[in-house]
Amino acid sequence: MSRMRRSIATVSLSGTLRQKLEAAAAARFDAVELFEPDFTSYRGSAEDLRSLCDDLGLGIALFQPFRDFEGMPEPAFLRSLDRAERKFDLMQRMGAPMMLVCSNVSPAALAEPERAAAQLHTLAERAARRNLRVGYEALAWGRHVKLWRQAWGIVQQAAHPHLGLVLDSFHTLSLQDSVDGIAQLPGDRIFFLQMADAPRLRLDVIDWARHHRNFPGQGELDVVGFFEQVLRAGYDGPLSLEIFNDVFRETPNRRVAVDAMRSLLWLESQVRDRLAKRDDTAAQQAVAGRALYAPPPLPRFTGWCFVELAADAQSAAELGALLQRMGFQRAGRHRSKPVTLYRQAGIHLLVNEGAVRAASQGVTVSALGLGVEDALSARNRATALQSARYDPPVGPGEAVLPSVIAPGGLVLQFVEHKLQAQGLFERDFVLEAPAPPPTAAALRRIDHIGVGLAPDRVDTWVLFCRAVLGLEAGDSLKLADPFGLVRSFGAADAARALRLLLSVSQGSQTRLAREVGAGGGVVVQRVALHSDDIFASVRALQAAGVAFVPVPANYHDDLATRFELDAPLMALLRQWGVLFDRSAEGDYLHACTEGVAGGLAFEIVERRRGYDGYGLPNATVLLAANAQDG
Amino acid sequence: MSRMRRSIATVSLSGTLRQKLEAAAAARFDAVELFEPDFTSYRGSAEDLRSLCDDLGLGIALFQPFRDFEGMPEPAFLRSLDRAERKFDLMQRMGAPMMLVCSNVSPAALAEPERAAAQLHTLAERAARRNLRVGYEALAWGRHVKLWRQAWGIVQQAAHPHLGLVLDSFHTLSLQDSVDGIAQLPGDRIFFLQMADAPRLRLDVIDWARHHRNFPGQGELDVVGFFEQVLRAGYDGPLSLEIFNDVFRETPNRRVAVDAMRSLLWLESQVRDRLAKRDDTAAQQAVAGRALYAPPPLPRFTGWCFVELAADAQSAAELGALLQRMGFQRAGRHRSKPVTLYRQAGIHLLVNEGAVRAASQGVTVSALGLGVEDALSARNRATALQSARYDPPVGPGEAVLPSVIAPGGLVLQFVEHKLQAQGLFERDFVLEAPAPPPTAAALRRIDHIGVGLAPDRVDTWVLFCRAVLGLEAGDSLKLADPFGLVRSFGAADAARALRLLLSVSQGSQTRLAREVGAGGGVVVQRVALHSDDIFASVRALQAAGVAFVPVPANYHDDLATRFELDAPLMALLRQWGVLFDRSAEGDYLHACTEGVAGGLAFEIVERRRGYDGYGLPNATVLLAANAQDG
Repeated sequence: MSRMRRSIATVSLSGTLRQKLEAAAAARFDAVELFEPDFTSYRGSAEDLRSLCDDLGLGIALFQPFRDFEGMPEPAFLRSLDRAERKFDLMQRMGAPMMLVCSNVSPAALAEPERAAAQLHTLAERAARRNLRVGYEALAWGRHVKLWRQAWGIVQQAAHPHLGLVLDSFHTLSLQDSVDGIAQLPGDRIFFLQMADAPRLRLDVIDWARHHRNFPGQGELDVVGFFEQVLRAGYDGPLSLEIFNDVFRETPNRRVAVDAMRSLLWLESQVRDRLAKRDDTAAQQAVAGRALYAPPPLPRFTGWCFVELAADAQSAAELGALLQRMGFQRAGRHRSKPVTLYRQAGIHLLVNEGAVRAASQGVTVSALGLGVEDALSARNRATALQSARYDPPVGPGEAVLPSVIAPGGLVLQFVEHKLQAQGLFERDFVLEAPAPPPTAAALRRIDHIGVGLAPDRVDTWVLFCRAVLGLEAGDSLKLADPFGLVRSFGAADAARALRLLLSVSQGSQTRLAREVGAGGGVVVQRVALHSDDIFASVRALQAAGVAFVPVPANYHDDLATRFELDAPLMALLRQWGVLFDRSAEGDYLHACTEGVAGGLAFEIVERRRGYDGYGLPNATVLLAANAQDG
Repeated sequence: MSRMRRSIATVSLSGTLRQKLEAAAAARFDAVELFEPDFTSYRGSAEDLRSLCDDLGLGIALFQPFRDFEGMPEPAFLRSLDRAERKFDLMQRMGAPMMLVCSNVSPAALAEPERAAAQLHTLAERAARRNLRVGYEALAWGRHVKLWRQAWGIVQQAAHPHLGLVLDSFHTLSLQDSVDGIAQLPGDRIFFLQMADAPRLRLDVIDWARHHRNFPGQGELDVVGFFEQVLRAGYDGPLSLEIFNDVFRETPNRRVAVDAMRSLLWLESQVRDRLAKRDDTAAQQAVAGRALYAPPPLPRFTGWCFVELAADAQSAAELGALLQRMGFQRAGRHRSKPVTLYRQAGIHLLVNEGAVRAASQGVTVSALGLGVEDALSARNRATALQSARYDPPVGPGEAVLPSVIAPGGLVLQFVEHKLQAQGLFERDFVLEAPAPPPTAAALRRIDHIGVGLAPDRVDTWVLFCRAVLGLEAGDSLKLADPFGLVRSFGAADAARALRLLLSVSQGSQTRLAREVGAGGGVVVQRVALHSDDIFASVRALQAAGVAFVPVPANYHDDLATRFELDAPLMALLRQWGVLFDRSAEGDYLHACTEGVAGGLAFEIVERRRGYDGYGLPNATVLLAANAQDG
């Protein structure tokens, strides 16, 4: 069984050509597609490039030197043919075996498939003399050829063994063209496969394609279904990523290359799982010779287990006092680390006062504990999908929590459900005698964790959530901060045992942008705690001196005109400064504490019935409150 | 004669509501449109807001408290009517005389104009009881009402004196709907006018409208023609800006408010000029009562006169040596300032070695000299259009150059053509005896100035160029830097006497972004000098030791396949590392020197025949060369 040959286009990565190649090699790609401007700007020769790629263990799987080739009037065609010969020279010198020809977009292109086929035949014949191959691809905005089926018709008509079809998931799925029939293509006539995902945007397809594609698993297209069809055809060539994305162009290329590899491994595993479930021997036989990547299965979550907060000695003392006012019991001290456990019902907060960065950044969240059915399997899936394993120091007899580093440095620790039941904390902590809770706050469990991301971390996190954790992102909403727009969206598992709220600032002037910048691109900004009676909780917390973000009376005046709320509820919302949202499924009541040093805040939330969101329509009021000067 | 009442929507400005109002007042607006979320998030009461506005001399011209009002089934309508009463309460408390109702976008809206008219009549009747008014506007993406003519039909049908039409240039022009007929509307039935421009984007109209509008004169819509029609109808109400723009949301609001006022003054003056030129007494009578803003006329340019470079003593000496290698003569010393004049044909470079910022920033351009027919008039137009006047210290007997500060701090000095002929430099400088030029570089004149802009300076500069200087921006091109995208576009007067090349980095990782950041958002990065024989110039400069950005052989190999260039020309381009571009009008040959300290570089260019661009297709090679590490 042979595994897929994995490739990435140089245009998908930032940097100089050498840096791009080094990043692709470091992420263990087998090959690259060479984007011609990268070569034109390269100071070395084609031979220099070949030897650089050899040293890095990379092939050059594909070269795309021009556009608007086929279906042209004779004089233009002959000029292009001359040009192609020069590019074939180059390809032989650099060791690139295949030239990509995209369908013609020129207004001069003629609507004559026979002519296109004949001209491609001539090109293929020229390629054949040098033992090179030509792949023909339908561009979604081609003048006459937009669909894979049209391109295939022309390839068939050209009938030359050195001419084959190139498929690209974006060009097919962006037009909502059907994939039916791809599985029936002869696999050896598909010369190359490019995979790209994308968010669904209401945008001209060219602008969409050139600026907003992303890696499989980062977008909303059915890339898994597309890849399945191509494999069923018996395709045996490279699996390649050709991504035009404005943000990737600005992101350190090592990081993007890791995302790229993660996306391909995930894509393979998804198709593998899908085929394994199907009662379709033909499909299984078609891919019988392929070793598709098989990481451990998705974790099954039992909920958020703990949050570890990093502080220094002074802020730890202040935070501890706040937590006690919030109804947490100081429950114990870690056996080997300067960590104090605070506990309330199902909520465990660990305050680590030995944090080096706390002096400059205030209190930050350094680790999250995720309850799972099988912690080792969860960790192994994460590392199989290119996450870095994390091995914290463990004292004698202490529990070992399988851990990984999420993108941007946040530590995720998997806590096995049965370990939790056996008493993780009893094992690692010297517990103190239970005392009556200082405040009867009635907080029950961690509802969600709010994470702020830099713009170049968003696609990374969407893929990490989906591929590593199995959390699917929901619809995103743009919210007006007084100093720019903020986009937020939830990510949760199907059972809603684990919820994240991810937020990104479009500009650099919002408070979120500053906090995320200070945190290196990823920062936990909110720990949301669920109460079964938010009014009782807020009353108790306020009585204990916990400060909440004030909600203007104008908000409640307007709320009363938007929803038909009964007078007692409306009065309670006003009295306790609680925000309210309603969906078709249920209601959401929430209130946010003032931030502790560093910007981290707690949110008290109450979900009623099937409400599945995060109260985002109210975010503008919270964002503005943070900036109000009176 | 009364002048227009000038207004701006609070959504157009960043900050808290109080900050927005202060910015609008500082820019001398008469009124604001209150965007409801700004009020909902405001901690004060409606009365507090009223008194704040009174203190600032601002009226609240319009309030838009909800959507989806008209044409609804009865129960929904009755709920909305209740809601409207609560909002009328608010409006009376805050002193807002008019409510805006946009055409319904709800899927529940009924396609029954009679019902819509009847429901609006009811609303207007309720408003009338409180002496308030209601304005009805067609939203470009309304469910049934998208066009101003449809909205007008409903207003006519409703036939209530407290209900009138609201016109918005964006909603009409974005749909390419006709403005014919607007001039024939009864002016007193148009209750309000919102003006917005926008770039032409291939984007869904909602996303376009919500994120990419800009001020009149910053975009590509025919806002002047639209405004003319509304004035011809006899409209006598406020002229208001309602701009949803993601960048404005992040930009300091004082700066945006100045742009806003500049755009309105420009808009008025454009319509005034247009009407004055027309032999149309009806049109002139319609606006006879209006005092439209009348700044001095656009300047007529005679070319770039000089560039002043700011340096410290050491970098001034290095720069002077470089300029002499580049064929400049050290021509004299300023009578009262530490400034040395370097001269070559029509090019004058002033090196000021007393610059305070040079130690940290290297050499920067601090002032540009623009040759004009009438310098005082040019300066007065600029200050009339809200540019800050600049009065540099002037020694006895020295020439006084009327000057202004361009957005971001660059000083523009207007040099009267006849003064130049009389010898500006002879008057201000102690000239040295002419010596034979050190290098026969054959540079003739300044071709263009390349200015790098931060993203939040682009719209400002487009408007400044157009309104203050009369330079029109050309099409922009996105160029791939190794670490992000850069967008560039030219701006020039019709006679092409004065050319600017404006560039902006989309991301923060490009060299341009770093240089622009260091320069506070606006930085001259390129001084392009024209040669009549670029090969002779580059040969002479290279012989004199001037370093040029290297151009890879791969570039010229590819160039040979793109254009049919004769062999001698191709050989020269290769030999001297000269870049080449061709348009339908002519050719462009160019080469860029390595930057001097601070990133500023010189470009040697040769325009052949009618070439009107800036060689932008070659920019990727230059950008990559700057980042190559071998």
